[in-house]
Amino acid sequence: MTDLHAPAVRHFASDNYAGVHPEVLAAVAAANVGHVPAYGDDPWTERLQDVVRAQLGEQAVAYPVVNGTGANVVALQAMLPRWGAVVCTESAHVHTDENGAPERVGGLKLLTVPTPDGRLTPELVARQAWGFGDVHRAQPGVVSLTQSTELGTVYTPEAVRELCDQAHALGMRVHVDGARLSNAAASLGLPLRALTTDCGVDVLSLGGTKNGLLLAEAVVVLDPSAVDGVEYLRKAGMQLASKMRFVSAQLVALYEQDLWRRSAHHANAMAARLRAGIDAIGTLQVTQPTEANAVFVRLPADVAQALRRRWRFYDWDVADGTVRLMCAFDTTEQDVDDLLAALRSAVGGTGPARTTPV
Amino acid sequence: MTDLHAPAVRHFASDNYAGVHPEVLAAVAAANVGHVPAYGDDPWTERLQDVVRAQLGEQAVAYPVVNGTGANVVALQAMLPRWGAVVCTESAHVHTDENGAPERVGGLKLLTVPTPDGRLTPELVARQAWGFGDVHRAQPGVVSLTQSTELGTVYTPEAVRELCDQAHALGMRVHVDGARLSNAAASLGLPLRALTTDCGVDVLSLGGTKNGLLLAEAVVVLDPSAVDGVEYLRKAGMQLASKMRFVSAQLVALYEQDLWRRSAHHANAMAARLRAGIDAIGTLQVTQPTEANAVFVRLPADVAQALRRRWRFYDWDVADGTVRLMCAFDTTEQDVDDLLAALRSAVGGTGPARTTPV
Amino acid sequence: MTDLHAPAVRHFASDNYAGVHPEVLAAVAAANVGHVPAYGDDPWTERLQDVVRAQLGEQAVAYPVVNGTGANVVALQAMLPRWGAVVCTESAHVHTDENGAPERVGGLKLLTVPTPDGRLTPELVARQAWGFGDVHRAQPGVVSLTQSTELGTVYTPEAVRELCDQAHALGMRVHVDGARLSNAAASLGLPLRALTTDCGVDVLSLGGTKNGLLLAEAVVVLDPSAVDGVEYLRKAGMQLASKMRFVSAQLVALYEQDLWRRSAHHANAMAARLRAGIDAIGTLQVTQPTEANAVFVRLPADVAQALRRRWRFYDWDVADGTVRLMCAFDTTEQDVDDLLAALRSAVGGTGPARTTPV
Amino acid sequence: MTDLHAPAVRHFASDNYAGVHPEVLAAVAAANVGHVPAYGDDPWTERLQDVVRAQLGEQAVAYPVVNGTGANVVALQAMLPRWGAVVCTESAHVHTDENGAPERVGGLKLLTVPTPDGRLTPELVARQAWGFGDVHRAQPGVVSLTQSTELGTVYTPEAVRELCDQAHALGMRVHVDGARLSNAAASLGLPLRALTTDCGVDVLSLGGTKNGLLLAEAVVVLDPSAVDGVEYLRKAGMQLASKMRFVSAQLVALYEQDLWRRSAHHANAMAARLRAGIDAIGTLQVTQPTEANAVFVRLPADVAQALRRRWRFYDWDVADGTVRLMCAFDTTEQDVDDLLAALRSAVGGTGPARTTPV
Repeated sequence: MTDLHAPAVRHFASDNYAGVHPEVLAAVAAANVGHVPAYGDDPWTERLQDVVRAQLGEQAVAYPVVNGTGANVVALQAMLPRWGAVVCTESAHVHTDENGAPERVGGLKLLTVPTPDGRLTPELVARQAWGFGDVHRAQPGVVSLTQSTELGTVYTPEAVRELCDQAHALGMRVHVDGARLSNAAASLGLPLRALTTDCGVDVLSLGGTKNGLLLAEAVVVLDPSAVDGVEYLRKAGMQLASKMRFVSAQLVALYEQDLWRRSAHHANAMAARLRAGIDAIGTLQVTQPTEANAVFVRLPADVAQALRRRWRFYDWDVADGTVRLMCAFDTTEQDVDDLLAALRSAVGGTGPARTTPV
Repeated sequence: MTDLHAPAVRHFASDNYAGVHPEVLAAVAAANVGHVPAYGDDPWTERLQDVVRAQLGEQAVAYPVVNGTGANVVALQAMLPRWGAVVCTESAHVHTDENGAPERVGGLKLLTVPTPDGRLTPELVARQAWGFGDVHRAQPGVVSLTQSTELGTVYTPEAVRELCDQAHALGMRVHVDGARLSNAAASLGLPLRALTTDCGVDVLSLGGTKNGLLLAEAVVVLDPSAVDGVEYLRKAGMQLASKMRFVSAQLVALYEQDLWRRSAHHANAMAARLRAGIDAIGTLQVTQPTEANAVFVRLPADVAQALRRRWRFYDWDVADGTVRLMCAFDTTEQDVDDLLAALRSAVGGTGPARTTPV
Repeated sequence: MTDLHAPAVRHFASDNYAGVHPEVLAAVAAANVGHVPAYGDDPWTERLQDVVRAQLGEQAVAYPVVNGTGANVVALQAMLPRWGAVVCTESAHVHTDENGAPERVGGLKLLTVPTPDGRLTPELVARQAWGFGDVHRAQPGVVSLTQSTELGTVYTPEAVRELCDQAHALGMRVHVDGARLSNAAASLGLPLRALTTDCGVDVLSLGGTKNGLLLAEAVVVLDPSAVDGVEYLRKAGMQLASKMRFVSAQLVALYEQDLWRRSAHHANAMAARLRAGIDAIGTLQVTQPTEANAVFVRLPADVAQALRRRWRFYDWDVADGTVRLMCAFDTTEQDVDDLLAALRSAVGGTGPARTTPV
Repeated sequence: MTDLHAPAVRHFASDNYAGVHPEVLAAVAAANVGHVPAYGDDPWTERLQDVVRAQLGEQAVAYPVVNGTGANVVALQAMLPRWGAVVCTESAHVHTDENGAPERVGGLKLLTVPTPDGRLTPELVARQAWGFGDVHRAQPGVVSLTQSTELGTVYTPEAVRELCDQAHALGMRVHVDGARLSNAAASLGLPLRALTTDCGVDVLSLGGTKNGLLLAEAVVVLDPSAVDGVEYLRKAGMQLASKMRFVSAQLVALYEQDLWRRSAHHANAMAARLRAGIDAIGTLQVTQPTEANAVFVRLPADVAQALRRRWRFYDWDVADGTVRLMCAFDTTEQDVDDLLAALRSAVGGTGPARTTPV
C-alpha cells in the first residue's frame, strides 16, 4: 500500500478531506485490547457518557453513530412523531446534502426558509411554524439549526436561546446540527454547553469527523423528555456500530480534554488568516462573515481555474462565482500563505488590479 | 484512558467482541497522510476496486459502507423496486437482527421460510417465490442467503449455484449476506469467487468487521445489471462515510492478500477444537454441524451459569438451553482449552456424566 | 352506459364482487344535499360517532377511511412506534394481500406464525412476542387478529379475550382486522362489542365494503390510550376522503340498525347451505370449518375447470386443489343450488362417484 | 337519517364541500348490478380506458384511485427512483396540503420554489433542477405543476409546453396535478389533451371529486415510458378500491361526454360573476387573476366576520386578510348574488366606500 501514500497535500475543499488527528489514532489503538461487548456495552462508551455530561450537562446522554447524516436523522426521528415536520434553512445540510435521508429514512417533512447567512431567526421560523392541529399540514415539531452554519457563520448564545424560547413556547423542540459546533464554540471562546444546553437546546448532533476524527459522531440528548426510542432508531437507522468502542474512543479523545478546542481554534485561525489575506488583495468580494473555519469568496473564473491546478475547493454558487475555502485542523500557515500567493498571482494576472495595490 | 485497558479477556459471544487485527490498524494509520477527497474519490477506494476485481471477478464493483445492516439494506434496495420482496430464512440476520431496517428504511417486504440449519433450499424458496404479477402480493424479486449461515453452517458452491439457477429462472436475483463469507470460503478451502461470482450470485454484502476490521463492510455488485442507484441509495441510507479512505484501507488490508483467509481459518479451527472438546465430553448435545466459527450446544442451566462467571456468550434458544459459542480471529487455543476445562468441570459437577465417558 | 349492464351474474369469488346494498345506495343519495364541510366535519360523520358508540362502547371513536388496507395500516401505525412490530398469522390479509403496505407505508415489521385454521392462540403469539428491550429486534407491540379469519373461521369471545389478556400482560395492544367482523358476530349471534370492546380489543378495522357498502371502512379506536395521531396518520396515509359524508353515510346505513347483521347472516347462511350441499356429495374434502361466509374445499382439476365456465372463485392452494367459495349479502339460494348442481354434475362426471349417489 | 338533511346551503369554502352531480349518482346506481370482478377487472374500468384515450390520446392509461393525494403520490413514485426529487411551487397542494404523504409514503423529496401566482416558469424550475449525478443531492426527476393552480390561475398550453420541453431536455419528466384540470380547460375553451398530452405532459392526476364526483380520481399515464409499476404502487399505496367499478363509473360519467366541461364552466362562470361583483364594489383588493373557479380577495376583518355568519370560506393569508372564495358545479347565481349583497353591505358598513363608488 505504500505506493498510495500521496504527498502531504492539504486542500481547501472540506474539513473532511483531512485525516485523523494523531491523538485520536492513538486512542483507537489503545482501545484495541481483548474482547469487549459489542454495540456499546463497553468501557469506552461508558466513559463517553462521563465526558458528555462534563461538557454538556448532567442530563446529557450520548449515542455514538457512524456519520453526521445518521446523527441528524436519528435525532429528528426521535424528536418527532410520524406526522412531524422540521423547520430549517434552505441551506441546511439536512436539506441540501443528505439526498433526502430525512424524508426517505425518517418520513420527515422539512419546511425550509431562505436565509442570507445560514442563520435562522424567530421571524424566519415563524414563516413555517404554524398550522398546528391542521391534519393537512405536516406538523412543525422541531426547529433545526446548524452551528456553525453551512455559510461559516455562528449563532451567539443569545440567538440560540431566542430560538429555543420561541420553539418551546410553540410546543416545539430544538435540534442543533453540530457537525462544526466546536468551531462555533472556539470562535466565541465558550464551552460547548454555553451554546447548547444552557440555551435550551434539546438534542444535539455532536460532530467529530470534521474535527479530526476517523469516523464518529453522536446524537447527544440534552433533555431526555424531548426524545423517544433513540436506541431503537439508531439500530433501525443502520447507525449502530458493532465495535462501538472504537467509535466512542475517538469521541472521548476529542472531547475529554481540549483537543476539540485546539483543533477547531486552529482551523478557525487559518480561515481568519486566509480571510485577512483575501481582504488585503482588495479586489475580491467575500460574501459571508468569516466566523468559523470557512471563507466564501467570489473568484473570477480564470482565477478559480488557476488555483484548481493545485488545490481542491468547492463551488458554492456557480452562477456568481462564489467558492468555499474550508480550513481543517491540520491546515498550516504555509498552506494558507501558498494559496494566498497563488491567489494574488492569479488575480494580478487578470488585469489592472495588479497595478493598483490596495 | 489507560484505566480503561481491560485485561485481555476473550469471550465466545461474537466475533464482533474482538478488536482489530494489527495489520488492519497499521493500514488505517498508513492511510492517514495529508488530504484526500472525501466520499470515495481517494486512492484507497480505487485500490479496493482492484482488490475486489481480483477476488470476485472483473465485473465486481465495491461500495464501502459502515455496517452490515447497511450493506444488506442498500444492496436489497438497489436490487428491488418499491414493490419488491425478499425470500430469506426465518433465522436470517436481515430478518431477526436488524430491527426492521429493511422494512423501515427500504420499505422492503421479507418473505421467510423456516429452516433447521440456516440454509435455504430450492424447495424452501419455492414456498415463497410465487404470485408474480399479482398486485396484492409483494413481488418476490430477490433470494437472500447468508454465508456462512447464522447457524454456523456453510453452503457448498453447488447449493449456491442451484439457488441462483432457480432464482434466475424465475426472474429473481440472488443476494448473499457475506458477513462471514470468509469463514465459509476458509472452511471449504475455496476462493471467495467460487462461492459467489462463479455460482451466479448477483450482489454480495462483503463482511469485514466480524473478521478483524474496525468498522467496514462493502456492497459488492457482481452483476451490474442486477442493481440500480447503489451510490444514491448508499448516501440516502446514511452509509456513506466521508473519510472513506479509512474504510477502504481496512478492506484492502483484509482482502488484498490472504489476511481474510488466515483470520477466518484460525477462527474456524478454534471452533473445530471447541467442538471436538465438547464431543469428547460426551454428554452435551451439539445442535448444528460445526462448519464455520460457531458451535451451538445445549447446556444445562447450571453449567451455562457457571461458564458465565468468566465468559460471555449468547443464548440461542432459551427454551431448550442452546447457546452459541463463537470464535474470532484472535481466539487462542488456550482460550478454547480454558473454556473446555471449565465446561468439563461444570458438567462433571452435575452428576454421573463424569463417570460414564462416551 | 347501459350496454355495460351485465346480466345479474353472482360469483363465489369474493364478497367484494358484490355490489351495493340498496339501503346503502339510498343513504348515499340522501346525503347528497347542499354543501357540507369536507374532511369529516359534517353531520353524517357526527352521526357515525353515535352509531359506533352504541355498537362498540362509549369510548369508541370512528375514523372513516377508504379501504381495508388503509384501515389496517393507519390503525397499526397509530398503535406502534417506528420501531414496533405486529404479531399476526402467516395467512393474515395484512401480510399476504396488501403488497407490503404495512412495511412500505408504515415501516412496520410483521412477525408471523403459521396456523392451520387462521386463528392465533396464546401459544402461537408467544413464539413471536419476545425480545422486549433488545434493540436488534423489532419490538412486538401489537397482536393483530382477523375476525372472521381469512380461512372462514371465527374466534369465540373467550379466545379473543385470552389473546387480549396475554397481550396486555406483555404490554402489547390488540388490533382486530374486522373486514368481516359482521360475519363473525352474526355467526355467533352476538353484538359487535361482545367480540371486541368487551374482550379488551384496543383498535378495530371495521369492515364495510365486503358487507354491501360501496367503498367505506373505518378505524375504530376502542381504547383511546392505545393510539396516537390517528387523524394525522389517516391524512398522511392518503385515507382521508374529502367528501367524507358519503363514506360516513354508508357506515351509518350499515351499522345504525341491523343491516350489518341481516346481510352477514344471509351470507353466512348461504355458505352453510353450500357447505351442506358439498358434504352431501360426499366425495369432496372440505378443509376448514364453515363458520362464516366461506367454504374451502378441494376440487379435482377438471371439476374446478367445469365450474369456472360459469362462475369465478379463487384458488386457495394450487398444489392441493383447494378453492375458496365465498358468499355475499346478495348470494341467493338459487345461486347456491345452481353451483351445487353443477358441482354434482362435474363430480359425477369424473368417475364412479356418479354411480354412488349420496 | 332524514334529520340530517341540512337545508341546501352552499358555501364558498371549497369545491369539495359540494355534493355529487345527479348524473354521477345515476351512473353509480346504474353500475350496481350483479357481481363483477373486483380491483378493476370490470366493464366500467374497461370503458374508462376508452374514455381516457378519447380525451387524452391513444397511449393514455387510467388507474382509478380514491383521492387526490393518492393520485399524486402514486404518480410521483411511479415516475421516480427512490433517490428522486420533485420540483414544485411552495404553494403546491402536494407540498402544503398532504401532510407529507409524498415524503412519508413515497420517500420523495420536494424541492420548492416561491411563486407569486402559483405558476412555475422555466426560470423558477431552473433554481432547483440541478445537481444531476451528485449523490448528496436528491435527484430532480419530475417537475410537478398544478392546473388550474392553487391560486386560481391557469397555465396556457404554451406555458405547459415550455416547462415540458425544459424538463425533457434535462432528462426529467412532467407531472400535472389536475385536481382542477377541467376548470383550466373550460377556462381556455380547450380540450383536456391540449393542456396535457399535446404539450408533452407525461403523467396526470386527473381530478374528479372537486368537479362533482363522489370520491374518484385517477392517475393517467400519458407516456408509458415515464412510469414503472403503477399498479403495484397503487395497491401498496392503499389506493386500490375493491369495488372499483363504482369509482370508474363516476369517472366515465364525468369524462365520457361533456359533463366535466359543463360543470367546470359553470363553476368558473360563477367565480367570474363573483369577481365582477367584487370589482364593482371598488374598495376591495383582489390578489390574483380570476382564471378558474376561485377568487382571492383581501377582506377587512369585520367584513370577513360578517360573511362568516352565513358562509364558510378559507383564510388564505391570515396576516393580510386574504380569503379564498371557491365556486363549485352547483353554486348558483343567487348564491353569488347573495354573497355579493352581504359583502356590499358589510363593506358599506365600514365607512364611506358605499357612498363613493369607484
